[in-house]
Formats: sequence, C-alpha cells, structure tokens
Amino acid sequence: MNWEIIVNSDYKDTVAETGNKLLIGNGYLGVRGTLDEHEKEELVAITLAGIYDKVGNGWREPLNAPNPFWSKIHLDDQLLTARSENVIFHEQNLQFRYGILIRETVWKTEKGNITLKTERYADINAVNKLHYRISLSSDQVMHLRLSTGINSDVWDIHGPHYKGVRLIEKDSCLACEALVQNDIDRVAVVREDTIAESSIYEKRLVTDESKIFNCYEIELNPHQSFELTSEIAIVTTKDHSDALNKAIQVCQSSSSSDKTNHLSKWDKIWNTCEVEIGGDEMAEMGMNYSLYQLNIAAPRHSKSLSIPARALSGQVYKGAIFWDTEMFMLDYFLWTQPEIAKTLIGYRIDTLSGALEKASQYGYEGAFYAWESQEGGFDACSDYNVTDVFTNRPVRTYFKDKQMHISSAIARGIDYYVQVTDDFSVLLEGGLITVIECAMFYRSLLLKPLLKDHFVINDVIGPDEYHERVNNNAYTNYMAHYTIKCAIEQAKAVMTLYPEAYLAIDKVNDISEKLKKLEAVVDKIYLPKPNEFGLLEQFDGYFTLEDITPDIAKSRLKHPKEYWGGGNGVASDTQVIKQADVLTLMEVRSDIFSPDVIEKNWHYYEPRTEHGSSLSACMYALTACRFNRPDLSYPFFLKSALSDLKGGGKQWAGLVYIGGTHPAASGGAWKSLIQGFAGLELSENEPLLSPNLPEHWQYLVFRINYKGKLIKIRINSVKGSYHILREEIK
Amino acid sequence: MNWEIIVNSDYKDTVAETGNKLLIGNGYLGVRGTLDEHEKEELVAITLAGIYDKVGNGWREPLNAPNPFWSKIHLDDQLLTARSENVIFHEQNLQFRYGILIRETVWKTEKGNITLKTERYADINAVNKLHYRISLSSDQVMHLRLSTGINSDVWDIHGPHYKGVRLIEKDSCLACEALVQNDIDRVAVVREDTIAESSIYEKRLVTDESKIFNCYEIELNPHQSFELTSEIAIVTTKDHSDALNKAIQVCQSSSSSDKTNHLSKWDKIWNTCEVEIGGDEMAEMGMNYSLYQLNIAAPRHSKSLSIPARALSGQVYKGAIFWDTEMFMLDYFLWTQPEIAKTLIGYRIDTLSGALEKASQYGYEGAFYAWESQEGGFDACSDYNVTDVFTNRPVRTYFKDKQMHISSAIARGIDYYVQVTDDFSVLLEGGLITVIECAMFYRSLLLKPLLKDHFVINDVIGPDEYHERVNNNAYTNYMAHYTIKCAIEQAKAVMTLYPEAYLAIDKVNDISEKLKKLEAVVDKIYLPKPNEFGLLEQFDGYFTLEDITPDIAKSRLKHPKEYWGGGNGVASDTQVIKQADVLTLMEVRSDIFSPDVIEKNWHYYEPRTEHGSSLSACMYALTACRFNRPDLSYPFFLKSALSDLKGGGKQWAGLVYIGGTHPAASGGAWKSLIQGFAGLELSENEPLLSPNLPEHWQYLVFRINYKGKLIKIRINSVKGSYHILREEIK
Repeated sequence: MNWEIIVNSDYKDTVAETGNKLLIGNGYLGVRGTLDEHEKEELVAITLAGIYDKVGNGWREPLNAPNPFWSKIHLDDQLLTARSENVIFHEQNLQFRYGILIRETVWKTEKGNITLKTERYADINAVNKLHYRISLSSDQVMHLRLSTGINSDVWDIHGPHYKGVRLIEKDSCLACEALVQNDIDRVAVVREDTIAESSIYEKRLVTDESKIFNCYEIELNPHQSFELTSEIAIVTTKDHSDALNKAIQVCQSSSSSDKTNHLSKWDKIWNTCEVEIGGDEMAEMGMNYSLYQLNIAAPRHSKSLSIPARALSGQVYKGAIFWDTEMFMLDYFLWTQPEIAKTLIGYRIDTLSGALEKASQYGYEGAFYAWESQEGGFDACSDYNVTDVFTNRPVRTYFKDKQMHISSAIARGIDYYVQVTDDFSVLLEGGLITVIECAMFYRSLLLKPLLKDHFVINDVIGPDEYHERVNNNAYTNYMAHYTIKCAIEQAKAVMTLYPEAYLAIDKVNDISEKLKKLEAVVDKIYLPKPNEFGLLEQFDGYFTLEDITPDIAKSRLKHPKEYWGGGNGVASDTQVIKQADVLTLMEVRSDIFSPDVIEKNWHYYEPRTEHGSSLSACMYALTACRFNRPDLSYPFFLKSALSDLKGGGKQWAGLVYIGGTHPAASGGAWKSLIQGFAGLELSENEPLLSPNLPEHWQYLVFRINYKGKLIKIRINSVKGSYHILREEIK
Repeated sequence: MNWEIIVNSDYKDTVAETGNKLLIGNGYLGVRGTLDEHEKEELVAITLAGIYDKVGNGWREPLNAPNPFWSKIHLDDQLLTARSENVIFHEQNLQFRYGILIRETVWKTEKGNITLKTERYADINAVNKLHYRISLSSDQVMHLRLSTGINSDVWDIHGPHYKGVRLIEKDSCLACEALVQNDIDRVAVVREDTIAESSIYEKRLVTDESKIFNCYEIELNPHQSFELTSEIAIVTTKDHSDALNKAIQVCQSSSSSDKTNHLSKWDKIWNTCEVEIGGDEMAEMGMNYSLYQLNIAAPRHSKSLSIPARALSGQVYKGAIFWDTEMFMLDYFLWTQPEIAKTLIGYRIDTLSGALEKASQYGYEGAFYAWESQEGGFDACSDYNVTDVFTNRPVRTYFKDKQMHISSAIARGIDYYVQVTDDFSVLLEGGLITVIECAMFYRSLLLKPLLKDHFVINDVIGPDEYHERVNNNAYTNYMAHYTIKCAIEQAKAVMTLYPEAYLAIDKVNDISEKLKKLEAVVDKIYLPKPNEFGLLEQFDGYFTLEDITPDIAKSRLKHPKEYWGGGNGVASDTQVIKQADVLTLMEVRSDIFSPDVIEKNWHYYEPRTEHGSSLSACMYALTACRFNRPDLSYPFFLKSALSDLKGGGKQWAGLVYIGGTHPAASGGAWKSLIQGFAGLELSENEPLLSPNLPEHWQYLVFRINYKGKLIKIRINSVKGSYHILREEIK
C-alpha cells in the first residue's frame, strides 16, 4: 500500500487544508503540517491535549505551544521559501505509517542550486519529545544563512494565550517558557541542536520579542552539506511543576534509539489495526490514513483523556470532547487497542462531577454531560455558538442546554466497553455510578402530560442540529430509555458478579434507591413507533414540515456562510436535516428495528439529509449494511474514509471557522468497514461476522483484539460468497 | 368640550395617519378619512366588518367596499386637489360627536376663487347607509367639471379581492356590484344623486373598467352654486342574497329624517358615556375621542360580532378579532352599553366550534381560541407573521400556536359580563359550556414533571411577544388556573340558580364529567410566587436574561424596521419586554396581589418595557392606581387616550404594515380613567368608587349603566379629598 501523502505546492488558499492533511502527533500534541518558514498566518500550530485557556470574552480553547520548527533560509538577504519563484522542486511527504513528515525544496539560483531537506516527527513513545532534522546542500560553493529556533508568536483563534515569554539559552539548549494568561499554567519548549562535524558554519544566538534562535552563517560546497539534528521537548505545568527544567531534562534524554523505538512502536500499532482491501486502493489507503489520524490523536500517555472533535489539528471547536468520541471513535479503539478505549472512558468517569454540576445548574438530577467538554467536564459551549452573517450578531443556539442526548452516548460507551472486553473494572471504578447518574438525568427530564399515560421528553435538540427545541425526538427518547435500562442491567450484573463491590458502591452512592426510581419509569417512556409506512418521525410534527431537498434549501441561501438552522435558517422549518438522526438511532439500536424498517427510513431520510456534519455519512453507510445494500453504503463509507485525505468538508458554520481533521469520520469509516461490510458483531463466545462487501472488493483483511487476543481476519469474496479465515497473531 | 378634529393639509407622508384620525363608521363599516379626490395610493378604504377573502397565498383579510365618495374637479382640464399649488384654504373637520366629516377647500384661480365643500357620515341607525353632500361655489362666473361616482379600484393589502365588477345605472342609481374572488360573496354599492334645482349643469354618465360616475359640466356664478346630495347604500351577500337590489332599495329609502335620527342617536350614545374632566382639556378630549372610536366600531346591528384590533380602519391585522376585545374594550361597553358587550361575547360563544377545532388540530382538548379570529373562529394567523428585514424571508413566529392565553380572556370576558350585569342568559345560551371548554383546554396543556408535585405549562408565549416558547409564563399559568376556577364556580352558580337549565346543558355537553376532571387539577397548577424582593418572574429564567433597557436594545438595531423578538431579535435574549405581562396579570388578578407587590413589580418591569404595543400603557396606568400613584399612572393613561389622536404608534412589525386605529388603547384609556382613577369596582349591591385623581383634575364626570340604570357620577376633588355625587339619568 502507498503510505505516503505528498503535497507539492504551498499556496495561501490551501495551507489550512495541507496543515490538516500532513498533521503529525502522538496524542499529547498535534503538529500541523506547515512548512519550516511558515508563521501564524499559515496556521502554524502545535496543539496540546487537555490544557485550556480563556482570554476575555473569547472562547476557552486549547493552548498552542511555541513553535520549535521555525526556520528561515537567506541567500544574500533574500528569503528562500517554497513560494519563491526560483523553486525547481518542492515536496512535503508524510510517511503516515510512521508519522514522519519530510520536506524537500530545491531552489535554482544564480550561484547554483540549493537543496533543503527537513524531517520531523512526534515521538510516539515519549510524547513530550519531538525530533527535527535540517539538511542544506548545494551543487556550488556558496554562503547561506539559516535562522532556526523557537517562535512563540503562535496561531490562536481566541488568543493570545500567553501574557509573557521567557526566552533563554540554558544548558546548551534554546528554551522558551510561556506564561499562560490564566497565570497558572506555563508551557516550556526546549530545543537542543547538534551540527554534523563536517559542516562549516559560524553561529550566533539571537533573541527578539517573541523568538529565540541561532543564526548559522553556512559555507556550502558540493562535497560539504550542513546537517543539523534537533531534539525538542515540550512540557507544561500540567505535566510537571517545574516545566522548564523538566523539558531540558527530557530534551537531553534523547538518544539515537528514539527513532528505532518510534518505528517499532508504529509497526506494533499497525499490527493491531492495519486494513487491506483487495481491489480498492483508494479505500484501502483512505481507511489506513483514517486510522493514522485516530492513532496520532490517541492519548496513550494518560489514563483519563479523550479526543477532541477536530483531534489535535488546532483550536477549532475549542479542543473540546463531543459525543463524537463515544459514538464514532470508541469502537475502533475498543476492538483494536482497548486500553485506549479505557482511557477515553476514564475521561468521562473522571468528569462525572462536572456533569452532575451541569445538571444541577439547569434544575435536573443526575449527570448532564457537556456538549463541549473540557477539563473537569466543564462545558465550553456558549449559548451563542453561531454568528448571524447578516447582522454580525451572536445567535442564541441551544447546543449546550437542549442537546440532551450526550449523556446517553457516555452510557452507551461504557456499556459497549464492558460487552466487548468483559472488563468490569470500569464499572467498579466509577462506571456504574456514571451510567446510573446518566439514567437519573433522563428520569429528571420526564414529563407526564395529563392526557397521556406515558412520559415525554420535550424541548430538545437531537443529533440533527438544524431543528431546535423539538418534542419527543425519537433518538433522544429511545436513548433515554436505553440509558435507564442499561443502568438497571449493569447494576444487576455487578450485584451478581461482584456483590461486595456493589455494596461498597451502594453505600457511598445510594444506588439501590436510585435503581428503584429508575425501574418505576423505564417502561413508561414514550417511544414513538414507525407509522403505517414504516417511517419513524424524527420528532413531533417533523412530517408536517415543508418537504424539500437540501438542494432547494441551499438555493434559498442569501449568503454562502449563513447558518442553515436556528430561528430562521433555510432548513429550520423544512424536513431538511443536517445529519443522520433517526438513522443514527436505527444503527445504535439495530437490535430493535427490523431491516425492513431501517430500509424504509433510510430511503426517506437520506434524500432529506444535507450531510452537513462529518458524523452523517457513516451512519448511512452502516445502516445500508443492515439491509444488505453495500452498494448504497459504499459511497458514504468512502466519503467518511476520505474526509481528511480529500478535504472539502464544511469550513464554516455561520462566521465561525470549523476546519480541521475529522476523527469521528475516521472512526465512522472503520465502523462502516468492520461493523458494516464485515458485519462484526458480538455474540456469546466469539465475534460474529456476516460479511456483505462491495461487489468490486476481492478481499478484506483486518485485525481485532478479542478479549486480549489479536486476531487477523481475512474475508475472501468469491462470486458472491465469502470465505473467512481467522488467524491469531502476536 | 371641543368636538372637532381639524386637519389642514394633505401630504403623502401623513395621509395614512389622517385617514385613521378622521375615520367615520358605524360598526358595519369604517370609512377612512381620505379626501374625495384620493385613490387607493392614499389608502382610500371602506372596510366592512366580518366579511373576509383570501387571494392566493396572501393573508385572509376583510373586504374593502368600492368607494362611492370618489370625486374629481377639473377647471379647464386642470385637476384641483388639496395638494394643488393654488389652494388658499383647506380643512377636513371631523365632528366626532356625530361622526360627520366635513371638507372645505378653496382654490384661487385666474378665473376666480372656487370653494368645494363636502360632507359625509355613516348612518349610525341604518348601518348600510352612507350620506354624502358636495357643494361647489365660486366668486366669479366660471365653468367647472365635477366627476363623481363609484370607484371599485380600492386599496387592498393582500388583494385584489374582486375578480370582476358590474357597473350599471339602474333605477336612477349608479350601481357597482363586485364579485369576490371566493366566488361566493358580492358587495353592492349603490349611489343616488340629487342636484339642487338652482344648479346649472349638464350631465353625462361615464363607465370605465373600474368606475361608474357622472360627469357634471357646471356653470357657476357668485349667486348660483352647485349642490349635490348623494344617498349611498352598501349591502353584501352576507346581508342579503340579492345584494344589489337590496342596496338600491336601502338607498332609495333614505329620507330627510335620517340626519335628525343620526344626530339624536349619537346624543343618546354620548348620554351613556360622555366624560368630563375638570382642568384637563386634552385628557377630556382624548378620552371622548377614544370613546368615539370605540362607538364607530361597535356592532350595534348584530347579536354576534366583535371589534378587530385595528377596528374598521383598514385591513391591518387581517381585520381579525384578538384578545384586545375582551381584555381592553369589553369593560367600557359592559359599563355603558351592555347590549354591545353581549354582542361581543356572543361572537365568542358562536365561534366556540372553531376554537374546539383548533385545539383538536394541535392535539389538545377544549377550546383553543384563535389568536386572530375571523368568521367562525377561523384563526387567520400565519405561522410566519413577520418578515426578516435582512433576508426578506418570512420568520416562523409562534403567535398562533403558542399564545395560549387567549382562551382565558374569553373566560374572563364572560365571567365579568355576568358579574356586572347579573344577566345569566349568556351563561345559559352557550357561555357556560364556552368557559368550561376553555378550562378543559388549559387542563389539556398540563404537564407533571416527574420531579415536581404540580402541573406546569411549558412552551408558550405570554402577553409579551418578544419572548417565545417560554415555560411557566406567570400570566398564562395564573390565567389557566383562573379559567378552571371560573368554570367550576359558574357551573355551580348555574346549577343553583337554574337547575333545570343546568341539567339540559349537562345532558348535551356532559359537563358534570368535565367539572370532575377540572376539580381534580385546579389546585395543582404551578403558580409562581413573588421572590424575596417581591418580584414575580415573568417566566422560568427571565431574571437570568441580560438586563438592559429598551433604549439599549434599540441602539443595537441594525435596521429601523427589524423585529425585536423572534429567534434573534434585539430583545429576545434580554429582559426587555414588548408590553405589560406580569403587570397585566396583576391588573386582571388585582384581587390576589397586594398593592405592595404590585408596586415593586411595576418599578421593576416598567423600565424594561418597550411599550411596543398599544396594549401596554394602560396596564401600567391601571396598576399604578392599585398602589395609589395617579402621578405615575397619568402619562400612561394619556398615552392610551391620545393614541389615535396624536398618532405616532408603531407602523411596522418587520416589513409588515401595522398602522390603523387602536381601539384596545381607547378601551384601555377608559379602564384607566374609570377603573383606575375613579376606582370603580363591583361590590354586593352597588358599584364601589375609590377615587384617586391626578392632582390637577378638579372633577371627573362620567356615566355608567348599572344593572339597567344609567347613572351619572361626579367626583369633585377638593384639596385631596373627594365628593362623589350620583344622579340617575334617562
């Protein structure tokens, strides 16, 4: 397979997309695939996981670290960049099997040709470490100047987040210590350069307001290149109270074996998840690249951290954790690297207090998980999440207070984790009470209309965000019911299997009392049923809305960036939906909806779906497999699998920039492939497969971790029937 | 008192306001105070009560009759109008004691001065009749041409409502029969002219596409004027199946005693209601003018008709009946001409079926009265009642489906009618079941949150329309409770006083069963209580909204006509309210709120009120009297009393024209004067008065009809104490 992503140009218009596509990272940080000479205008960013700051009235967002890959080359005071007119070759090459980004640019000058090569990677083992190499060569004798060091003037959306930087040389390292506006956190970036002995140069240290760098005056000739190796460490006060000295220590601990270990670790990762698709190179590459994106976002270094909606590709969506993780990404990790799935779930368990507090603020009981979760479960979501393009005024949106379904995603994540792994420790260590509190939250939403014999849930937003404040959103009601059932069943399982642990949990949390309350309502929640045509109404009254297609809605736009939803959007009062809603329900609860009903709803809702969210396509891909139509599924699968490779997703919601990588689409592509086409399901003793591959696929090879055993599965497709081979691997 | 309203100019910019101010009418029709030479561009209209039509996707609105006052004067082919440069005197004079509009214009020409005088009035006894006179004179010998007749090209907002007109001369009358687009109704306008014998003229009949008129070639000299008297009749197929011949008959039944009878009837009307205010001419005139406006809108000719929100001043607000009638106008009629109050209530009783149907359409029980009620109780309100000024798109508004409080206004109207008149016939003839069905409607809205021991009412709009879809609007909850209590109490009263009638009603409507259901919930409705500062929150969460003044909200407007409410208005997410909401509650239920609480809430809410509705000021005027502050009350009273005389109210809601007269403000002014300053209240045997007049008033004289007796009351204010004189009058 082709493990290389190559970009041969550097344009202002494409720099954002390239930065996403060539992203490297290790779960602790993400480094956008920008060039050495780029500045914040080119969206240079090293986004740090799980550390946030808020400036003034701006949104709270993750920190971007000072940039230690800052390098400029001058020939006689002329800056050489990839955009210079005299470039005769330019390439960025992401070797995504190993997360290594290589750059090569050749300039043809009057004095001769100059070749710059750089390489960078984020250490997958020691996540505070980055590695950087610069090589300069020429076919003639010439003099060049290379300035390279740390630049603290970084890209911020709602910044600047640093109120001051300390730039010093210490222990032969360049060091930058940035003080965050919150007056608490500091980010230390340290870089130690080693120059190859054969290189000829003079060096001087330069410090200005925002940068510390070495200026190398270099003599090149055809036989003597300039070779610089740089070891970099980034440490924050979240890692260590003395971040600066810790960074110096980490930096100086680098050794030549780092790279070997890095490569070997990546091979091990691929051994858990690499996919082969016979007869479809594009799908194969797209899928593996999607897994690359998930793996560079995976928090291997933590027991309690999750993956933001735009992963570590920047500050978009406030670096916050959405339901995306549990609904779209979790399954991949769970079936390949369950320890990462446990970390993702650990984050939710550890932020239960934030969810309890949010519920209580709104007058509910139980756990109301944040729509945009940051540290401690703090909901970063604003009540005004969109800007009106016509008035430039903030628009009151209800994502934070009415999108009630997030708590059910947490319950579903914990439930599925236990089902796949049989690892009850998650339940015993906070998971059970988490699910119960989610259930208690839904219970507290219940309203009994005097005229009805059931409970309703009113005034919510379902997965489709274009319709606000609706009543009895089918997804929400069913998932509330599911969550309550889940809580009851999990409690029973724990009580049976771990009676003492149960008693201990009960003693602290009084869960028996809560379970009684849950049992009293579980069967009384209104679960709307499919109508005479087999169609399940998305919410009360949805079928009475104007029935138009997304194309017609689009033709009504009066401004290309205007928001489709909200009080007066082009979709708000129509049946046009942003993303799969009823079909998301039918995927999550495919156990209770028949293939026939799923098919009818698929054909009804799909033409009415804008797919304005990267969460949409994979749900249609998955559900088309439920009624055995891989042909219908395939384009949606491909759209998910290629979402970051091809780019082209929505870049704007109102006037808010929402670009970046799409780990939920990546996870959704994996779900479509493995749970859809391969038909992977849990059953009593072993995973069940019921393949239904796209016609042009000869075979599908993938790997899963089943109860601790790594299994390679090969599905050969021969004239419409399937041969399945299983092989345990090390 | 000055009974004349004089307008001396005719400008394009003021023609709409003048048309309202000089309106004449008789409850069957309203004739805008335009000039004889005006066309539809000047908003010429004769708006008919209770007859509606809808064209295409436009709003359903009342018909404007063809204009029989159309007249043009030419001197040598030069049209003479009030806007001509050679006008040396011009006056429109509305003698509002008798509803007679006189016009006089003098032109100075090279051939001499020309004087035009016209007079028109709508017959207050025979409501299909209109009377018109034209007089032309000159101080020199000259020739003039007068064209005068019927013009069917009328002003329409959502027209044209006529698909064809028949223009004929018949039985010496000019006749116009217009066929309404609905293919059912016809409007016949007939006019018979008589010319004074001394006049010298030649006449020819002219008919064009839209007009039929006589063209008089007139010879004038200083001793011989031209005098034309015109009798007009307007009859629709709602009145008579052969509208045209009926109109001819009506027209020819006119006699010289018509005017005597007209004047005498008006004197009788004023005898029931004229107000005198010692020391405040402006207030006195404003109040009596307001009563004039109410009286020309009063449907004396019917047993079942009501008064539209803009009375008969045009098609604005679709000529529909709002809660304005019961909440703001009814009391005036009830206390002066109770037979008219009975007609207004009769309209609601007769449209119960429409309210039952509306409730059922929305899945409720009982009677959900229309927000904008037309024939049969049909709700003319659109789901898109406002146009966005930035996108020109219709905005989804919730007036129709969420403004639940209208049914309580009906219940209150019936309740108060019975209290004031002791006339139980209204209850026996449909009133009781009407109130019970209103109560059943509120019952069907009740939701019991699982966590609470009471019922809530969610997702409503209160009187303040800027805040949509709120929960537990105090006004709505209290009024729902009041309506249910009312139903129970009225049923008990009927059962006691008219046991047989009760049984008969019960037999048909099964009210006993309904009363049981109502009794079971009446004490369990959540009635929010004033907080520690004595403040009653307008709805759940109101106090958490941004706390700004209307001025600040206004400063945020980006377009002068933009709507303040809805999804993204400048008031929507703030504490700025359109109109009295909590204070409306405190006025209607002043029996359960202490003066101290009313005072505190007055001072809180008034500065946050835009008074963007003509319903607002009088509620603040009334409630200030509840805590004995006539000084605070006075400016709001005056604003109400002068609303049509001074003009200047809101002319636009979004891009929708909302100008016209304000009968609710007129009724509200009467309430402020009589129930506020004079402190009129019901008590066991006689009306109670507790006066609290503005300091500069020496006396207040008014009249009421108390249980069939007309009483003149004089309150003399002497050094802060009051002497009350009562005198029964004939």
